[in-house]
Amino acid sequence: MDVSDEENMAAWLMSVNILKIQPFKLPSLSPHDARIRMKAVGICGSNVHYLKTMRCGDFVVEEPMVIGHECAGIIEEIGSEVKHLVPGDRVALEPGICCWRCDLCKSGSYNLCPEMKSFSTPPSHGSLANQIVHPADLCFKLPDNVSLEEGAMCEPLSVGIYACRRANVGPDTRVLIFGAGPIGLVTMLAARAFGVPRIILVDVDDFRLSLGKSLGADHTIKVSTCIQDADEEVIQIKKAMDADIDVCFDCVGYSKTMATALSATRAGGKVCLVGMGHNEMNLRLVSAALREIDVIGVFRYKNTWPICLDLLSSGKIDVKPLITHRFGFSQEEIEKAFKISADGSSSIKVMFNL
Amino acid sequence: MDVSDEENMAAWLMSVNILKIQPFKLPSLSPHDARIRMKAVGICGSNVHYLKTMRCGDFVVEEPMVIGHECAGIIEEIGSEVKHLVPGDRVALEPGICCWRCDLCKSGSYNLCPEMKSFSTPPSHGSLANQIVHPADLCFKLPDNVSLEEGAMCEPLSVGIYACRRANVGPDTRVLIFGAGPIGLVTMLAARAFGVPRIILVDVDDFRLSLGKSLGADHTIKVSTCIQDADEEVIQIKKAMDADIDVCFDCVGYSKTMATALSATRAGGKVCLVGMGHNEMNLRLVSAALREIDVIGVFRYKNTWPICLDLLSSGKIDVKPLITHRFGFSQEEIEKAFKISADGSSSIKVMFNL
Amino acid sequence: MDVSDEENMAAWLMSVNILKIQPFKLPSLSPHDARIRMKAVGICGSNVHYLKTMRCGDFVVEEPMVIGHECAGIIEEIGSEVKHLVPGDRVALEPGICCWRCDLCKSGSYNLCPEMKSFSTPPSHGSLANQIVHPADLCFKLPDNVSLEEGAMCEPLSVGIYACRRANVGPDTRVLIFGAGPIGLVTMLAARAFGVPRIILVDVDDFRLSLGKSLGADHTIKVSTCIQDADEEVIQIKKAMDADIDVCFDCVGYSKTMATALSATRAGGKVCLVGMGHNEMNLRLVSAALREIDVIGVFRYKNTWPICLDLLSSGKIDVKPLITHRFGFSQEEIEKAFKISADGSSSIKVMFNL
Amino acid sequence: MDVSDEENMAAWLMSVNILKIQPFKLPSLSPHDARIRMKAVGICGSNVHYLKTMRCGDFVVEEPMVIGHECAGIIEEIGSEVKHLVPGDRVALEPGICCWRCDLCKSGSYNLCPEMKSFSTPPSHGSLANQIVHPADLCFKLPDNVSLEEGAMCEPLSVGIYACRRANVGPDTRVLIFGAGPIGLVTMLAARAFGVPRIILVDVDDFRLSLGKSLGADHTIKVSTCIQDADEEVIQIKKAMDADIDVCFDCVGYSKTMATALSATRAGGKVCLVGMGHNEMNLRLVSAALREIDVIGVFRYKNTWPICLDLLSSGKIDVKPLITHRFGFSQEEIEKAFKISADGSSSIKVMFNL
Repeated sequence: MDVSDEENMAAWLMSVNILKIQPFKLPSLSPHDARIRMKAVGICGSNVHYLKTMRCGDFVVEEPMVIGHECAGIIEEIGSEVKHLVPGDRVALEPGICCWRCDLCKSGSYNLCPEMKSFSTPPSHGSLANQIVHPADLCFKLPDNVSLEEGAMCEPLSVGIYACRRANVGPDTRVLIFGAGPIGLVTMLAARAFGVPRIILVDVDDFRLSLGKSLGADHTIKVSTCIQDADEEVIQIKKAMDADIDVCFDCVGYSKTMATALSATRAGGKVCLVGMGHNEMNLRLVSAALREIDVIGVFRYKNTWPICLDLLSSGKIDVKPLITHRFGFSQEEIEKAFKISADGSSSIKVMFNL
Repeated sequence: MDVSDEENMAAWLMSVNILKIQPFKLPSLSPHDARIRMKAVGICGSNVHYLKTMRCGDFVVEEPMVIGHECAGIIEEIGSEVKHLVPGDRVALEPGICCWRCDLCKSGSYNLCPEMKSFSTPPSHGSLANQIVHPADLCFKLPDNVSLEEGAMCEPLSVGIYACRRANVGPDTRVLIFGAGPIGLVTMLAARAFGVPRIILVDVDDFRLSLGKSLGADHTIKVSTCIQDADEEVIQIKKAMDADIDVCFDCVGYSKTMATALSATRAGGKVCLVGMGHNEMNLRLVSAALREIDVIGVFRYKNTWPICLDLLSSGKIDVKPLITHRFGFSQEEIEKAFKISADGSSSIKVMFNL
Repeated sequence: MDVSDEENMAAWLMSVNILKIQPFKLPSLSPHDARIRMKAVGICGSNVHYLKTMRCGDFVVEEPMVIGHECAGIIEEIGSEVKHLVPGDRVALEPGICCWRCDLCKSGSYNLCPEMKSFSTPPSHGSLANQIVHPADLCFKLPDNVSLEEGAMCEPLSVGIYACRRANVGPDTRVLIFGAGPIGLVTMLAARAFGVPRIILVDVDDFRLSLGKSLGADHTIKVSTCIQDADEEVIQIKKAMDADIDVCFDCVGYSKTMATALSATRAGGKVCLVGMGHNEMNLRLVSAALREIDVIGVFRYKNTWPICLDLLSSGKIDVKPLITHRFGFSQEEIEKAFKISADGSSSIKVMFNL
Repeated sequence: MDVSDEENMAAWLMSVNILKIQPFKLPSLSPHDARIRMKAVGICGSNVHYLKTMRCGDFVVEEPMVIGHECAGIIEEIGSEVKHLVPGDRVALEPGICCWRCDLCKSGSYNLCPEMKSFSTPPSHGSLANQIVHPADLCFKLPDNVSLEEGAMCEPLSVGIYACRRANVGPDTRVLIFGAGPIGLVTMLAARAFGVPRIILVDVDDFRLSLGKSLGADHTIKVSTCIQDADEEVIQIKKAMDADIDVCFDCVGYSKTMATALSATRAGGKVCLVGMGHNEMNLRLVSAALREIDVIGVFRYKNTWPICLDLLSSGKIDVKPLITHRFGFSQEEIEKAFKISADGSSSIKVMFNL
């Protein structure tokens, strides 16, 4: 059974704080494309940001845009050249389509492609829709024991996996994580899967820390937002680790978190900046450089869906506890969903079931 | 011929702005040590810093200390276990003695050893003396066609070599260098030896830039010290390169130079922080991280003397033009030498011939 | 001026030792393609191999195939989406078209793509033709001071560049190269451009060694083809280097060359196997493994055309002396050209000018 | 209480098949040394080799030598400069003492030091003795929940850990292991701790395979010693993995195992040669190189004791099931122990309790 274009509905970001479910016309199917019926779509912090301000970082929403990019669904139709999928397959979707013609794509950094078109990054539409068309090589078949919701979670999990790869963590790396929101938590789960023996999780929020603890943090530390407390907190963190901190993931991205990270990390260690809290930071970077602490940046992810599905299927990572709220796909539900998602002290991941 | 202890004189830093040539008692020679008659010792910016303020970074001079650490000399005597040297050999000296018992030493990062004892880093004495005793494995025999002054230059050159290794430059790396002082210039010479095809050198000083140009910079750009000019200067730098800037060495270490470096470097590139201008910096680090620009720190050097001597001997690097002034080893001369060394707009490297 | 399809002629490999110039129908131009008039095409050893045996390694020519893959030409027409080229541009062509959908392509190893379609690798046609159609992103504009013949030489030079990258050579790597044929020589030129301070070149042929010497080998050593001489030759090679051999490139690929390479290389060094002489080898691999000598394989190249053009344009590499013979594009000439190319003791690179 | 020299007994290898417990005079204690009372010493395959042939690889026993090198004990006395230990501490011992003066030591490859003096590697004595003297920085304090026998197992486990590091395995690496003896098994345990999702273990022996299965191999395959079966076995192995094999550890080191490994591993993968079965091998190395399969060698280990103790203490690795037999320290017992150890189809690790 197929749907006519008129029937395909999507969640459009119209203007500040205005989301509307409206028709979304699908493009025609190219030989290497697939048409997918969406079944599970999560809300990402950036979606909330766009809704509130029509921008995120340097990206600005200038025309109505379909939102959503953490998603999984069921194949409805495949292009003539697609070999690895058949209609009915359950798939998780990698959101970004790169050019494969620039130096960055060709040299293994497709995530940095300047031509990247990615779900719900203006001017590219997102995937919170009944159906979408997407390149089939970005549709990854779910193992039988991985649910569609878990498939949608591959997107945030990918951020954690990729950060762990960039920072090269493993069983001889002790890890400190700032931020126990969705990204901090998936980074923690990923680090564990890479064999990290000891993880300290730091946040300002009790709810998030307690979830982090239940998900496997060896130690959680509640900190303040006050920069004056940083020195004291570094002492507390180091004492809790009782060994060198080799790698720190800053999944917050404030002056204070980076300053604390640079102080707490051992000489020769790495600080991986994942969060995007404040762009402008005040840091003692020379002190860090003299201890050869490298500051590693990450932008999204690359080549992560297969490993995510492996880790979910084998049970080495369980993302289900991160899904704290679920909603249906109606005007009323999406409004409620975004309201809850915006409140980080009571929700982690909000998921739509379509 | 040997000298008795009474005769061994050294340049002691006594207190702020007070240097005195006074007797310096040599320790006894252990089986793996060598006694070296110093012949060429250069003045480093840190020496000037110590003289003016009795401190440099976190190191504080609390008792009179012999200064100097860029040095070469002639072997006078070797310990019973030393096989690779004989008296009369001309040698360049690596200044730092590490513990070889800590994790950092054992895992290939001896430069980060917390027990490091290095010439003229308090409380360790330096090498501006008639003779010193030093581990023989830190004495590297000079090839016949490398002079003692060039041998002394291995120390600053090592900083450039090591920075190039850390940033992994080569024939497909385009390089931007901030700072045309001694460290910026040796980094430029090193980058060239690593095959870097194009180097832009940036400074605020005409004298330094013109020396940089004559030493092989493809392009030099004079900038201001005013942070407001940074955006305009980034445009100018990018236009001059007319290609991606892959690696930037900040051999100054100010908020402005780092900010410019982070903006000018391509996505996926590296900024290597070598200079130690200001510790506290104000930076848009999230923007840089989102473009996966890694900030790489360097502390001194490791395993660099053999390659320095190779490059000097083969003529691939010529450090002689960096030596702008020479002095003898007397109270009067050292006072003059430090005065000139402190004025970066007329001198690059000031050398003592003992 | 355009040519009609009937007029487009190409050199077809028909059967063993039979090459025929015959019409070659061009495919239609896709939006990202370019049509190129070929001007310079070199003969590669594999072309000779195919001519003699209709096979090379695991590839078998089962139907008539156009040969040639080292090539440069002039853009005649571009597809609607091509932005970086205009008709009249002189370009060098990277031969291989990969899928950009498999794990290897996506993770930065496009040269290993199992779907790779590459000039004159059966069943893909080559480029020894008046005109061909090729993806525009594989057409690299020549700098003004780089000739079309030099452009064609980017292909063999790429093998050397890529081998040097894989083996990570630089100014602190001493290099031994087996084989002074085209690949050994371009590897030598590439190694020099990466800053390698000292290169010993080994071959069985005086002509090739003398060319190698004139192109910059620090030392050349003539060896036998007799395995019994290997131990003696290792001693000779080590004596000639008078320092550790860090990396060895075997551009021959025989049991004897690999055995010699493994013995001559220092503990912790690398042997990079570039040549494809004999598949079956008899080696003391445990001895090599116990000295942690890694054996590094290379297949073709990736991301090398830009650096090749840079190095040719800057004069850091001069490939012109490698072109020992030139021929026109006629039935008579191609027969002569392949005869000469097959005789490695009098020719290095044979080039067609179309 | 101290023991006089006369009382210190050790197991001496006197000549082929002759082991004798005889007095072993201890050297005096230097400031950085410790004196340790041995409590647990394992038998390694190389010990058996020495006993049977008085040689192992290039090492030849020319004078009576104390054997044993997998060991743990209790500190009896420490040198004046030792800070991290006190008498009574339980410690595991890293056997090798390197020079810290050569290029290999200084650049992070101390395991390749040509001056290495390691337990029971002629002419250095081993540690199967009541007491020994050893550098204190090679004595690693056992966590309270790690037994002395487990401490002794750090030595073989280190081989597996180091091989995993060299091959850079992790949660996106699928692994094939040849050999289910002690080294194959510790490599499997180590790979699991590095997050490897799927491991196939191959051997010729049922007993070993069933132990491997119980220790966590995902799949075990029994193979023959006949080279003619290799192609068929590759098919079987690939089918069992049902995914790319990224890394293969050959913990046997025969022509057949290496040939199978090179065929079974995916393009761009790695084969790590750990076993030392036969030096001379017959291999299709060009085919492997064309698929860019790197052959990685390993020699012993470096910097592994801390991570071993971590993994044992946290329970991520359990080596206790590898200890299949235990003996006391008497003439009769050591003879029995070596007899059992030589029979690989009924024992894995034979341990002495002193």
